[in-house]
Amino acid sequence: MTYAEKSRHQLQDELDILTGEYARWQARGLALNMARGKPAPAALDLSRDLLDALPGDGAMTDAAGNDLRNYGLLTGLDEAKELMGQIMGVPAANVIVLGNSSLNIMYDTVSRSVTHGVLGFTPWAKLDKVKFLCPAPGYDRHFAITQHFGIQNIVVPMTPQGPDMTVVEHYVNTDPAVKGIWCVPKYSNPQGITYSAKTVRRFASLRPAAGDFRIYWDNAYAVHDLAEKGDQLADLKHAADAAGNPDLYYMFASTSKITFAGSGIAAVASSAANLAELQNTLFYQTIGADKINQMRHVHYLKDIEGVAAQMRRLAAVIAPKFDAVLKTLDAGLGGLGISSWTKPNGGYFISFDGLPGTAKRIVTLAKEAGVTLTSAGATYPYGKDPQDANIRIAPTYPSVDELALASELFVVCVKIASIELLLADKS
Amino acid sequence: MTYAEKSRHQLQDELDILTGEYARWQARGLALNMARGKPAPAALDLSRDLLDALPGDGAMTDAAGNDLRNYGLLTGLDEAKELMGQIMGVPAANVIVLGNSSLNIMYDTVSRSVTHGVLGFTPWAKLDKVKFLCPAPGYDRHFAITQHFGIQNIVVPMTPQGPDMTVVEHYVNTDPAVKGIWCVPKYSNPQGITYSAKTVRRFASLRPAAGDFRIYWDNAYAVHDLAEKGDQLADLKHAADAAGNPDLYYMFASTSKITFAGSGIAAVASSAANLAELQNTLFYQTIGADKINQMRHVHYLKDIEGVAAQMRRLAAVIAPKFDAVLKTLDAGLGGLGISSWTKPNGGYFISFDGLPGTAKRIVTLAKEAGVTLTSAGATYPYGKDPQDANIRIAPTYPSVDELALASELFVVCVKIASIELLLADKS
Repeated sequence: MTYAEKSRHQLQDELDILTGEYARWQARGLALNMARGKPAPAALDLSRDLLDALPGDGAMTDAAGNDLRNYGLLTGLDEAKELMGQIMGVPAANVIVLGNSSLNIMYDTVSRSVTHGVLGFTPWAKLDKVKFLCPAPGYDRHFAITQHFGIQNIVVPMTPQGPDMTVVEHYVNTDPAVKGIWCVPKYSNPQGITYSAKTVRRFASLRPAAGDFRIYWDNAYAVHDLAEKGDQLADLKHAADAAGNPDLYYMFASTSKITFAGSGIAAVASSAANLAELQNTLFYQTIGADKINQMRHVHYLKDIEGVAAQMRRLAAVIAPKFDAVLKTLDAGLGGLGISSWTKPNGGYFISFDGLPGTAKRIVTLAKEAGVTLTSAGATYPYGKDPQDANIRIAPTYPSVDELALASELFVVCVKIASIELLLADKS
Repeated sequence: MTYAEKSRHQLQDELDILTGEYARWQARGLALNMARGKPAPAALDLSRDLLDALPGDGAMTDAAGNDLRNYGLLTGLDEAKELMGQIMGVPAANVIVLGNSSLNIMYDTVSRSVTHGVLGFTPWAKLDKVKFLCPAPGYDRHFAITQHFGIQNIVVPMTPQGPDMTVVEHYVNTDPAVKGIWCVPKYSNPQGITYSAKTVRRFASLRPAAGDFRIYWDNAYAVHDLAEKGDQLADLKHAADAAGNPDLYYMFASTSKITFAGSGIAAVASSAANLAELQNTLFYQTIGADKINQMRHVHYLKDIEGVAAQMRRLAAVIAPKFDAVLKTLDAGLGGLGISSWTKPNGGYFISFDGLPGTAKRIVTLAKEAGVTLTSAGATYPYGKDPQDANIRIAPTYPSVDELALASELFVVCVKIASIELLLADKS
C-alpha cells in the first residue's frame, strides 16, 4: 500500500511508530557522513605503488629527453597527454595535461574568458549579461564557479537521456548572452545518467547565437564503471568536428578518482585553436605543472588497459557500498510511492528524490540523528531546488557497515518527512 | 687605458683584431645558453631523496590526522606552513601553501584583483586605469603578468639599496590608480641587490592613495646565498604591522630553486584579512593542492636548518659558475670603462650594463656566434630598456667550462659593440 492510499489515521499511527524509532536512532549518537564525494582510505590504498612509479635507475627524463624535474613543458609530458587522451577518448594532440585539479582548469577557463575573452570575442567582464546553462540536478561546484563570477545560472531540466536538449537548443541557439553549459556527460553528478548518443549528437550540432559559447564537458567519471558492463558515452569531439563545430567544447578529466584524489593529474581536451589560447595564458600563469607526478601516473597506469584494471579494483571497493545503500532503500521505501532514486552503472553518487517539499526536512532529520547528507538544494544553481525534492547521496567514503546504518536511518527520515507532508496536505 | 682614452686609430686597430677573434669564435660552432634562470641537472640531482621522503610505514596522514592523499585542506598542511613560514620569515599562521609555482599564485592574485577586487574595493576590470610599479631592471615574468591584464607598467629606477623609494612614495602615495609594485627584495632579479633595512622600512610605511594597493614581495631567493655570509633582508611583515599597514603586502616564495624547479611547493604569506580573501577564492578554484608533495618537502627539508644545509650543497654547485663568469669579465673588461656588472652574494643572476646603446648589439653578436643571452630589454617593462644597456646573465644552467667559454666570447662581443659605438660617436 502506498502512503497516498493510507488514511489520515493510518499515517498518524505509522508516524508515531517512526517517531519512536527515530528517537532510538538519536540515542545511538551516530556520526556518519554521506555528503562527501571523496574516496575512502581503502580505495586510496590501492594506489600505494603510484608513489614509487618512476622510470627507475635515477632516470628523470621523458622519452623526448626533457628533465622531469626542471621548469618548462607548459602543456605537459607527451606520455601524459597520451594517457589522458585515452581516458578522454581523444587524440593526444588535443590534450593539455596540467596539475592535480580539473576543477582548477575549469575555474581558470571561466576566469580567462571573463578577463580576456574567448578567441577574440569580447571579454565577459565587459558584457552586461553573461548566462550559463546548468542541467540540474547537477554538480554544485560547477554552478558555484559561474555564480562566483557573477554569471547568471539557468536551470535546464535533466532527463534520463541527459539535459533536455530542446531547452538547451532554445537557449544556446537564440540568446547570445548564453556562453556555456556545465555538463557531466557520463555517470552525471548526482544522477549517474550517461548522455544518450542522440543527446551528444544534438550537443555537437548546436548553432550557438554566441560565437564564444562553449560546452564545459566535465568527463569526471569517464572510466568509472561500477557495473560489469559500463555505460558508453558517444564521442563529442568526433561529432562536433563532423558538424563543423570543432571549437565548441572544452573536455575536462582527472585521475583524482582513479589514483589519489588530491595528488592526481588533470587534463583539458579541445580544438587546436582553443588549446593555443590556453597555452598562451599558461605562459603568463605558470612555470609548468608537476611533470614528475605526470610521469608517476604514466608509469603506474601505463595505458587505458592499466586504467581499466585499476577501475575494476576500485569498483570492488565501491560497488558494495552502492549496493548497501540501494538494498536498504529498496527494502525500506520500495512501493510506498513517496520517493525514487537512481541505480547508476558507475560514478560516485545516488540521486534521491523525495516528495516535493520534503528534501530539506529529510536532511535536517538525518543531521539531528547524526547522519550528514549533502545540503538539500545543493544540486541546483544558487542552492535552490524549486521542488525541494532532490538529495545527493555519496556512498564512497563511509564503510559498508556505516552506509547500511546511515541508510536505515535515512529511510526513517524519509518516511517521517513524507507523512508529515501528507498529513499537512490532508489537514 | 680606457676605451674612451683611445684614439680613433687605436680603436680601429683593436676592432680589426677583435673581428678576427670573433670570426674564429663563429667558426667553432658553439651552442651555449646563458639565458635560462633554471637549475642544472647536477643541482637537481642533490634532491634525489625528496622523491622518497614521506612518513614511511605507509603512513599517509599529517600530524592532525588528515589523509594526505584525499581532497581538502585548501590552505595546505600545517607542517608545510611551518616550513615555508621559516623560509619566508613569518609565522605559519600567516602562510598558505599551494602548488608547484609561486608565479601561478602571483598571476592568480592579480587575476582575482581584476575580477573580484581586493577586500571590497572595486574590481580592477571596472576601473578605467590601473598601474603597477616595476623596479627595473627587474623580472620579465612579473612585468608580463600585469601587461597581460592590460595594467600599465611604470618603470621605477633601481638603486644599490633597492627601488628608488622617493619615486615609489611619490607614485603610491599620490596616485590611486597605482595598485601594486613588483619586488624581488633579496638578491633581486637580475642585479642580486638586497633591499636595505631603510628601504624595507619605507615600504612598510607607505601611505597608499589606493586602499587596495599591495606590495608584491616575491622573496624568490630568500635563502639562496652563494657567499659564505649571505645578505640579510629586513622583516617587512613586522615593519608593516608596526606601521599600521598589516594588509599592505603579499609575500611569495617557493622551493623551486631549493628542490625541484618544476615539482616544488609554493606559498603566499600575508595578513589574516588578505589570506581569508584568498581562501574564499580557493574554495571555488580548486580541490586543494598536492599535499603529498607538501609532505615530501617537510620530510626532506625538515626545517630552516635543513633548508640552510640544502642551500650550502646547492651553493657548492652554483658558486663556481658565478665565479667562472665573473673572473672572465674581470679579466676581459676590467678597467676598459665600457661596462659594469654585479657580484651578488646570492640569487640566480649577474646583471651586466654595457655602454648605452650596445645591449641589443652585444646579444645579437653573441647569438650569431652560438651563445644565447636573455634578450636585451627583457629586464624592463614592455621589453624596452630606455638605455639599451642592461643584459641579464644566467650562469646556473651551463657547466663551468661552458660558462668560461661563453663568457670569453661575451667579452669579445662587448668590446666589438663598444668600439663600434665609440667610432660612430667620433665620426
